[in-house]
Amino acid sequence: MTPTVDSAAIDAGADTDAAALDGVLAAAATAATLLRSTSGTTRAGWLRAVAAAVDADRTNLLDIAVSETHLPAAALDGEINRTVFQLEHLAQRAESPTLLDVVVDEADPEYPVAPRPRLVRALQPVGPVLVFTASNFPFAFSVAGNDSASALAAGCPVVVKANPGHVRLSVRTAEVVDAALTRAGAPPGTFAHVVGVEAGATALRDPRIKACGFTGSVRGGRALFDIASSRPDPIPFYGELGSLNPVVVTPAAAAARAADIAAGFAASITGRGGQLCTKPGVLFAPAGSGIAAATAAAVQPAPAADLLTERIADAFRSGTRRLAEIPGATVLAGADSTKPTVVSIPASVLTKSGVELEECFGPAAVVVEYDDAANLSVLLNRIGPSLTATVHAEPGDPVAIALSDQLVVSAGRVIWNGWPTGVSVSRAMQHGGPYPATTSPGFSSIGADSVNRWLRPVTFQNWPDDLLPAAVREALAG
Amino acid sequence: MTPTVDSAAIDAGADTDAAALDGVLAAAATAATLLRSTSGTTRAGWLRAVAAAVDADRTNLLDIAVSETHLPAAALDGEINRTVFQLEHLAQRAESPTLLDVVVDEADPEYPVAPRPRLVRALQPVGPVLVFTASNFPFAFSVAGNDSASALAAGCPVVVKANPGHVRLSVRTAEVVDAALTRAGAPPGTFAHVVGVEAGATALRDPRIKACGFTGSVRGGRALFDIASSRPDPIPFYGELGSLNPVVVTPAAAAARAADIAAGFAASITGRGGQLCTKPGVLFAPAGSGIAAATAAAVQPAPAADLLTERIADAFRSGTRRLAEIPGATVLAGADSTKPTVVSIPASVLTKSGVELEECFGPAAVVVEYDDAANLSVLLNRIGPSLTATVHAEPGDPVAIALSDQLVVSAGRVIWNGWPTGVSVSRAMQHGGPYPATTSPGFSSIGADSVNRWLRPVTFQNWPDDLLPAAVREALAG
Repeated sequence: MTPTVDSAAIDAGADTDAAALDGVLAAAATAATLLRSTSGTTRAGWLRAVAAAVDADRTNLLDIAVSETHLPAAALDGEINRTVFQLEHLAQRAESPTLLDVVVDEADPEYPVAPRPRLVRALQPVGPVLVFTASNFPFAFSVAGNDSASALAAGCPVVVKANPGHVRLSVRTAEVVDAALTRAGAPPGTFAHVVGVEAGATALRDPRIKACGFTGSVRGGRALFDIASSRPDPIPFYGELGSLNPVVVTPAAAAARAADIAAGFAASITGRGGQLCTKPGVLFAPAGSGIAAATAAAVQPAPAADLLTERIADAFRSGTRRLAEIPGATVLAGADSTKPTVVSIPASVLTKSGVELEECFGPAAVVVEYDDAANLSVLLNRIGPSLTATVHAEPGDPVAIALSDQLVVSAGRVIWNGWPTGVSVSRAMQHGGPYPATTSPGFSSIGADSVNRWLRPVTFQNWPDDLLPAAVREALAG
Repeated sequence: MTPTVDSAAIDAGADTDAAALDGVLAAAATAATLLRSTSGTTRAGWLRAVAAAVDADRTNLLDIAVSETHLPAAALDGEINRTVFQLEHLAQRAESPTLLDVVVDEADPEYPVAPRPRLVRALQPVGPVLVFTASNFPFAFSVAGNDSASALAAGCPVVVKANPGHVRLSVRTAEVVDAALTRAGAPPGTFAHVVGVEAGATALRDPRIKACGFTGSVRGGRALFDIASSRPDPIPFYGELGSLNPVVVTPAAAAARAADIAAGFAASITGRGGQLCTKPGVLFAPAGSGIAAATAAAVQPAPAADLLTERIADAFRSGTRRLAEIPGATVLAGADSTKPTVVSIPASVLTKSGVELEECFGPAAVVVEYDDAANLSVLLNRIGPSLTATVHAEPGDPVAIALSDQLVVSAGRVIWNGWPTGVSVSRAMQHGGPYPATTSPGFSSIGADSVNRWLRPVTFQNWPDDLLPAAVREALAG
């Protein structure tokens, strides 16, 4: 039994002041030294302790989350399951003997060019990591979410900046995480939580912070990327920003199953109020396929969505207004309050005008109706890189074959006859992509390999084995 | 027999104009699509063809290199060997079945949280890469050097910007590389060479360039990093900039072998005219150990160095002047013209003043004389992160043990009882480090894994096997 927390009593707001922030960063720097000498097995134990603590506080956390985020309790409950699973997934990565990717080249006096000394290369934690959390996943990409979990798995202290959309939940989750880590034996400074825009920006500029993770909007993420990149000592910034996640429906697929596609599209647009990074924001359908109208009909009955925050609702309303105002656009559903919105435009609007489609966060999508599949390549080029790119096609479909390479180039994940929403937490999952999908296309923010963002290689040349970091010695012995 | 080239007749200079540059970038973008479908084995063949062609043109290339760089012919000849070996090392990486790091997660309807679709994750080439070459390695980090070779190994077209210190050599090497690639069957646009500051900066801003490699100064590298980071679509910038490469001599090591250490230090400072990224620019020695004086005595007989360019010589002269003007500094050798320079300062100058040591490219080093080994941690903290950090110590040396973690944190490679110059081309070699050593501490610019800079993961969800890129199909089949 967990004692019930009076969630309304949680202080939702005092921004972290400069002195407190300095204390947080000093503690994180001290902890970084201690964490470097921990084994992955030890840190796996910490992650499991956090998972158990989040699970044990589920009722309290859900109460706060429902009131702050307006997401349905069932969705949030499922998200806690996901968060707990992620912590376990990353615990397994932390304790894997392959975590440090140790490579040994023995000394070789006959090595080409010049004699080679003994070289042991191993990944090492980068140091304190700053995490800006997501509004749309108050658990899975928030305080106890994937960025925090992967940084701890790597051996990096974590400083989380509370998301303004759910500060009370952030504060409570931080209490749960901090207490669990402390009970599990993690040193002071392993984890901290700060509140306020100024505290976040100041921490990002601080030389004690060595890397940053971010999930959010293009505007917010770019501003923070610019801070990270303009430091006297720039640091890696792993931002997941925005994405249109295009879907291409080939003529053959439309002919075979337009109704199914429209139903799937409608579900993918409106799931979680359309507030998913991988929501398909634009779909290319053959003109006359009826997919646009069928999608609109499917979303039409839904009431206005209760979006995460008033700011997000405002942005949605102006975003759908902009969609409706595209020359040649037809509003098929919504564009009114926060109702699910479907707008269709003829392909010629994209090819012949300067219209730039941009992500409209929330339950909205554009259907681009094309007459000639030969134009799809040019049309896709008018959409920036995304987290995902999807094609609905038939077996051996020549249109899909022709587009395949272009889809791969434009996204971190390509999907065949499916929908991009619903991202599996799995080793083979890539959640990333070229800008603006992310600021770091070489990395994933989901899955076991998301730990790689917080590690860097170090080579130990002729280094005495007994002075190697303990985890490297273990990897060599095992 | 290679026909002799009239090296003096090579056009050393016309800057690439805007129209020519646009042609180069368009061809690179086209080639990127073709290269994505090549196998690593094919590209390994290309790299071996380049290696053979460079080797075959050795006499001509050496003639030009000697006249342009003032480096000794023997050193340049050895560097060609290294360049040829690097191409072979990366050819082996290109043809390795592990290049794409393919991970398959089979579909699993019972997977936790939600059913998992089939996921195949594989690394894919990022697209056209821009390479800014090094002045100090006109072969190994230049046109046919490690950045070009690793990008080609990854499947990325390469646009090389000529180094202003050896434009004629650049032009000739580019001819050799281009001809070899063409003969080996690489598509047009696989490789190009451009000349001029404006062409380089314009290319870096161009959306067709997807990543950039750079080896050079902090000032030049930071300016280019800033361009890459401030693009509308920022791209990864892998810059290797500057490094003091500190060396710590413990009291026990000094007592045991001061003369040997001084001799090794003198050789490491002056090798290749001190023009190495890993030259140890600062050494911490016990006061009274005589290491500073012995180092000075060892370098004293050397004549003024003939540095790579007049600009580098100017920078060296002002750099050594600044060293000599540090309050409390004693000039033990040089600080006069381009003679090897050794300056000693008491440790108190570093701890008590605002003096910031900075890299002085060329044959110069500072010996910081300390009275108390307990201060070494604070002293090391006054030196920024570096490519390397070295300790000379005795077995079980408590001073070295106390500093070990700090050395690891501050560098990409730590060295025990050796010297940082002479970087082995080997899988376990990390040539990198936190800023200012590089702009991308997670990556190496030397060794097989330097290809990772030019690859990014893509996940194929329920993707038909016959639409996977050919190299991914091969990896799955193998």
